[in-house]
Amino acid sequence: MQIEKSDALFTFRIEARQGRARAGVFTTPHGDLPTPIFAPVGTQATVKAVTPAQLSELGAHLILANTYHLYLRPGEKLVAEMGGLHHFMNWPKPILTDSGGFQVFSLADNRKIDEDGVTFKSHIDGSLHRITPEKSIAIQEDLGADIIMAFDECAPPTDRAYNERALARTHAWAERCLRAKTRPDQALFGIVQGGVFPDLRQQSAEFMASLGFPGHAIGGLSVGESKEEMHAMIEVVDAVLPQEKPRYLMGVGTPVDVVQGVLRGVDIFDCVLPTRLARHNAAMTRSGRLNLVNAAYARDARPIDEQCACYTCQNFSRAYLRHLIISREMLAATLLSIHNLYTLLQLVREIRQSILEGRFESFAGQFLEKWGQAEFSSVMQDASS
Amino acid sequence: MQIEKSDALFTFRIEARQGRARAGVFTTPHGDLPTPIFAPVGTQATVKAVTPAQLSELGAHLILANTYHLYLRPGEKLVAEMGGLHHFMNWPKPILTDSGGFQVFSLADNRKIDEDGVTFKSHIDGSLHRITPEKSIAIQEDLGADIIMAFDECAPPTDRAYNERALARTHAWAERCLRAKTRPDQALFGIVQGGVFPDLRQQSAEFMASLGFPGHAIGGLSVGESKEEMHAMIEVVDAVLPQEKPRYLMGVGTPVDVVQGVLRGVDIFDCVLPTRLARHNAAMTRSGRLNLVNAAYARDARPIDEQCACYTCQNFSRAYLRHLIISREMLAATLLSIHNLYTLLQLVREIRQSILEGRFESFAGQFLEKWGQAEFSSVMQDASS
Repeated sequence: MQIEKSDALFTFRIEARQGRARAGVFTTPHGDLPTPIFAPVGTQATVKAVTPAQLSELGAHLILANTYHLYLRPGEKLVAEMGGLHHFMNWPKPILTDSGGFQVFSLADNRKIDEDGVTFKSHIDGSLHRITPEKSIAIQEDLGADIIMAFDECAPPTDRAYNERALARTHAWAERCLRAKTRPDQALFGIVQGGVFPDLRQQSAEFMASLGFPGHAIGGLSVGESKEEMHAMIEVVDAVLPQEKPRYLMGVGTPVDVVQGVLRGVDIFDCVLPTRLARHNAAMTRSGRLNLVNAAYARDARPIDEQCACYTCQNFSRAYLRHLIISREMLAATLLSIHNLYTLLQLVREIRQSILEGRFESFAGQFLEKWGQAEFSSVMQDASS
Repeated sequence: MQIEKSDALFTFRIEARQGRARAGVFTTPHGDLPTPIFAPVGTQATVKAVTPAQLSELGAHLILANTYHLYLRPGEKLVAEMGGLHHFMNWPKPILTDSGGFQVFSLADNRKIDEDGVTFKSHIDGSLHRITPEKSIAIQEDLGADIIMAFDECAPPTDRAYNERALARTHAWAERCLRAKTRPDQALFGIVQGGVFPDLRQQSAEFMASLGFPGHAIGGLSVGESKEEMHAMIEVVDAVLPQEKPRYLMGVGTPVDVVQGVLRGVDIFDCVLPTRLARHNAAMTRSGRLNLVNAAYARDARPIDEQCACYTCQNFSRAYLRHLIISREMLAATLLSIHNLYTLLQLVREIRQSILEGRFESFAGQFLEKWGQAEFSSVMQDASS
């Protein structure tokens, strides 16, 4: 089955390659995306604690919004009535929505999967809901993002039997999503699953490639497997997926994960890490998390990072940020989100430039040496985005 | 007693008058203040939920910070070490600090007043502290604002005997503040008290005028007395205080209060109302509070105010703002603060322009007719700024 109807609006032009890494441009109805790219996460139609104007100043192009959350609140029909997500949240640049699959499967005891779809209880009020592949596409069409995702099942990464069953469903559902899709101004990406099993990943990548999606996502990673397993899975998939289409590594990740992903042919990343760390009073630096609540920073007149050009680092001391945190002032989350988002957005800009200039491999080597020990993941288990 | 040492850096030039209203410029070491002016409140060295860049875009010039709060946290010595309040909070324009008096007297059962000063318990940790007039000036000199306030006692407005005793203390303390002051780059304003009693207000204004302060504040109003009483007190004071020095009506107020104040010769206003209402999900409009949590706005595609030129009204619908509130997103407080602050800042700009153009009286008449019924005060009893 080949469905090409939406491809005309979406072209992917690779401008330079180095090793597996690529620098490209993905065109969408709301503007061009320079790749590699990092998408800040706006779960509930807002990237937490920052305005669209601030996001734009940070140089963000693509943002991600969550179908599960927006379906429950305010409801996709309301968003559609308000002119769609771009207009509703005042983000005129490209938006990507996930399928709701990952969030629904995260509900654990509060959801039930069958071959046709998933029934689940709302985390807001316990009400019962059902999402099928067709429903996921219908919601995403109402939301109106530029890039939308096939409804998939994200299985525990190391359970072989579970992954085999889930993969069969994910593949069947991908075909149903393609058939259900009606809007030509949205690019539907298929999602490769398969846990930590190379043969399943290969099989899934081959299947998704055969369906003719304009782009592909790699799902089910950064969910508990080792870094080595994650890297190995990306490599398997990279070898199979068509080179001329963009690849999106879902929910990843740390600065190091982003560099490791680009080294393995990934073009698009998203992660809640920068904004979530910010709300936990942590700044991202080359030496890892800098927890600004720490008394050591009470009289520290330095910015978070003396090399950083973000608004926060140009204008505020660690002592001031700590004061805001201790005083429970909202500005703390805003200023830390600005710094952390800038860190990721600036990183992908530097990666892209280094690919264009043919020096990505040395850039990556130096970067991994400097940031290799930086540890950001411990806060990632927390509940909210 | 006349102390003029700080006056050279602070000049007040009246550019136009209409009735009692004046349009002027008050010069300070951190820039000129066009008057009438409204100062957003940054209690803890941050105007809640907005960045200094956003404040600057809103056209704010002067902001207020609270001595009581900053003395307790992070401590005035720390602020001084960090280069003073302007540098600490990244506000290069003028700052005004209050004396701590009003906050300390608000502690009710947790403070004890004597002739020499006030002993009180911290609202943060219950620890014991003491502020005298000399201590208030020392704290304010460490904080380093452009305009500082004499330490005064704010009495319950209708208790005559209390007001007589408090006034004697306030006058003695004003003289002690003048003697304690050492920095030539700060303008110390004396505060007129006297409750709702015209003779006490007159006596207080005469006393403060005799001390040669570069500017005067009117304290103890908007604390429970009627609007008529407030207006009458401002009129008594206006007739006594020197015309050639700026007058600051402390903690006032609503848009209507500001217009009524300017009509009676007031130049400077501050109020927590715009940012506090914002955190209570309320927008300020010509018809009063618009409580955006209301279900009536769920599908309302209009901005808060179609005539408003603020960032929020130019870019976001009531439906989106309501979604942010219901979803407990921090952006709600930011966008509502921007709108509410713009409302007050734009009002004083329009007032000033109308005075310069000799049409303030008709402006005020039309304004009071449109906004006269607008009710904003009910949220003002809430605890935090």
